[in-house]
Amino acid sequence: MDYDVLVIGSGPGGYVAAIRASQLGLKSAVVEKENVGGICLNWGCIPTKSLLKSAQAYEYAKHAADYGVAINGEVKADYPAMVKRSRDVAAGMSKGVQFLFKKNKIETISGFGKLAGKNTVEVTDDAGKKTTYKAKHIILATGARSRELPNLNIDGKKVIGYRKAMTLDKQPESMVVVGSGAIGSEFAYFYQSIGTKVTLVEFMPTVVPNEDVEVAKQLERSFKKMKMKVMTGSTVEKVDTSGEKCKVTIKTKKGEEIVEADIVLSAVGIAPNTENIGLEEMGIKTEKGRVKVDEFYRTNVEGVYAIGDILEGPALAHVASAEGIACVEKIAGKNPDPIDYSNIPGCTYTNPEVSSVGLTEAKAKEAGYELKIGKFPYSASGKASASGQKDGFVKLIFDAKYGELLGAHMIGGNVTEMIAEMVVAKKLEITGHELIKTIHPHPTMSEAVMEAAAAAYDEVIHI
Amino acid sequence: MDYDVLVIGSGPGGYVAAIRASQLGLKSAVVEKENVGGICLNWGCIPTKSLLKSAQAYEYAKHAADYGVAINGEVKADYPAMVKRSRDVAAGMSKGVQFLFKKNKIETISGFGKLAGKNTVEVTDDAGKKTTYKAKHIILATGARSRELPNLNIDGKKVIGYRKAMTLDKQPESMVVVGSGAIGSEFAYFYQSIGTKVTLVEFMPTVVPNEDVEVAKQLERSFKKMKMKVMTGSTVEKVDTSGEKCKVTIKTKKGEEIVEADIVLSAVGIAPNTENIGLEEMGIKTEKGRVKVDEFYRTNVEGVYAIGDILEGPALAHVASAEGIACVEKIAGKNPDPIDYSNIPGCTYTNPEVSSVGLTEAKAKEAGYELKIGKFPYSASGKASASGQKDGFVKLIFDAKYGELLGAHMIGGNVTEMIAEMVVAKKLEITGHELIKTIHPHPTMSEAVMEAAAAAYDEVIHI
Repeated sequence: MDYDVLVIGSGPGGYVAAIRASQLGLKSAVVEKENVGGICLNWGCIPTKSLLKSAQAYEYAKHAADYGVAINGEVKADYPAMVKRSRDVAAGMSKGVQFLFKKNKIETISGFGKLAGKNTVEVTDDAGKKTTYKAKHIILATGARSRELPNLNIDGKKVIGYRKAMTLDKQPESMVVVGSGAIGSEFAYFYQSIGTKVTLVEFMPTVVPNEDVEVAKQLERSFKKMKMKVMTGSTVEKVDTSGEKCKVTIKTKKGEEIVEADIVLSAVGIAPNTENIGLEEMGIKTEKGRVKVDEFYRTNVEGVYAIGDILEGPALAHVASAEGIACVEKIAGKNPDPIDYSNIPGCTYTNPEVSSVGLTEAKAKEAGYELKIGKFPYSASGKASASGQKDGFVKLIFDAKYGELLGAHMIGGNVTEMIAEMVVAKKLEITGHELIKTIHPHPTMSEAVMEAAAAAYDEVIHI
Repeated sequence: MDYDVLVIGSGPGGYVAAIRASQLGLKSAVVEKENVGGICLNWGCIPTKSLLKSAQAYEYAKHAADYGVAINGEVKADYPAMVKRSRDVAAGMSKGVQFLFKKNKIETISGFGKLAGKNTVEVTDDAGKKTTYKAKHIILATGARSRELPNLNIDGKKVIGYRKAMTLDKQPESMVVVGSGAIGSEFAYFYQSIGTKVTLVEFMPTVVPNEDVEVAKQLERSFKKMKMKVMTGSTVEKVDTSGEKCKVTIKTKKGEEIVEADIVLSAVGIAPNTENIGLEEMGIKTEKGRVKVDEFYRTNVEGVYAIGDILEGPALAHVASAEGIACVEKIAGKNPDPIDYSNIPGCTYTNPEVSSVGLTEAKAKEAGYELKIGKFPYSASGKASASGQKDGFVKLIFDAKYGELLGAHMIGGNVTEMIAEMVVAKKLEITGHELIKTIHPHPTMSEAVMEAAAAAYDEVIHI
């Protein structure tokens, strides 16, 4: 055997699995066909956060006078500079992972990896040369790519996916974003905030349709406040790219509407990278295109594991990383707990930010719980007022019977950092009253968590 | 009896106590000699956070190019506009408390309140008119003010306290800040960041001397990076205000140094407002100038309670509020748990921010614990990189024997929001391994918490 653990794919699932494996004394390597770090580092989480930070800096500069900052001159979004910063940040992070590989003595094998028999991976490099490697344990962590809709073909020029959306040659004057999940909403927010005229089209009745409906409605209000055109309950019928501008035919509840835009961004979800990696040849079971695994990520074929976006479940970097760790800890003979998928936080880095964990109000009701719900608005938060970020709220959902926290839903400044508290709280099965009696520092936005809990029990102070 | 509960002082201790009392069906009133909301709302937490937000906006505008924002013109701190915004925010918050009083049917009695016999408070209004009120329970929540050092007399013009520091007529060119606790450090940071030449003088060997020494050293590095002059282990011997500039004689380890400055800000702690409120006449016991109370804030005199800054202990708004709530819940016949003073978070809103809860490394060692310590630097955090906030770290201290979290110490972006997670974690007695296995959302700075826990157990991924 060449390795104890060979991971195909170096995204946040794969690279984390390899590092943890190496820590546990397993000789490991990673096969990567592109940049180390995968989509997350190179084309996802990290570079988009850099762009969004640029948007934030632009908004501060635009509204400088509100804060007592005088600018005698024009403030302009320098889009190419924003893109450059974003690429530099991504490159830095990718180098960081390469450093971690070196430090942990993890070999990087460049090329496209596929299963090629028992304990065997065949890697095809850029020149087409094939090499086989033997490993006791093979982890598939090949991730996902943009899903394409039949009536929305990505041509990479006028109709683009998320990758191109972060490296356009110039800032488009107008853009139609199709799909308002985290990716779609973040790009819609980014471009609208730097001055592009954005139309956001969502098939479902609300934006960020996986979020609690009250959060979704607040985000829609915030988007509209910044003059974004938001079309929910709408679908893109076709895109005519023959002219200078794209003509996008959108079916709404009220009929058809045609929106013109320089660019159409398709952000309608992702498709797992399960093709040509040897699944069929090895007889690895899949379901609805996703690899089937047990609670420790073992496929039906011994020695083959799968983690991350090629599995059913939330396609999130932190989930892939946690799966990678649990997978290799089990391989190493440790006794990890299976991941609790009911306690996975999700974040959308718009302004206001959105975050959540656990059940929405609708899902909690569906599940038959009797609920105690508490909500605390940022307009009543001293820190939010001082920060000029009054739009937002924290909504907490408790089981009325035992007081258990079932779900937390937040929109507003800093909520992507605040949600971690709720994950810990849920993990340790906090009750509403315990949360009310947890002293939160003043003045912070996190006080809204304590107050929302208090609101659920009619003990709220500041509303 | 006029009231069930009469509170003297409407700061975050007093007003919160009154609201909770009213919620619990107790007829209550508050005596206030100045603005409703006390120091915190009017002259403390809230207006300073507004100023610090202005400083943040100024820093974004100054460094706009780093984020891809082009400004063709000059960026200037408009100090009077910053002060105005801050006063407006404070006024808005004070109105908010007035609204809450109305909503909760809490009477506001304007004037200076003092104990005047059993169940009796005498209030002297601005015109000198005295009125007495009867109440079953009287809560002293009179707060604190700037402490004055004998060789640093506050004249309100050149040598000032924190109040004046947030409403100067014009931005001073230079300033000596004496004392580097939260208040001193925040003002030093604010003025330095908007262009005032600041010298920060601290008697103790490090700035923010109550914080873990590693955090303190990082803050000092950050202050020096912004060209602030930091003099630790130093004392102000005398201030000569006779000339145009103040001549401040500072004794350092190396000898005497004279620093010239327009303004000297004394931020050497606070003194409790215990004078003339009838303590001696009523025979209420004090110790070292602080009122003595039991775990539910009862003084030795029946029917008289005390909360907040007039007690021994951390002078923090959130502590006063929690004390107020516990005090009136006990009065109302509820069964509140006593406050756990080992689990009180503290924050300093400089840039980088500082936050902590529980034992420092030094204190934990003093207490005889064997320790597992984990530290994770912001330089290894993807979100911190994308945000351009690489200075900082999270340091967690665990008891080696049982894995219990003993203390959390943070410096960096967003840490004042991140500390709440640690308070919940400590309250629910999380272990290091439970924290490692709590899935934090990517990319956030809160991941640094999980990674610091992992670092304590040699399981850290990203360093």
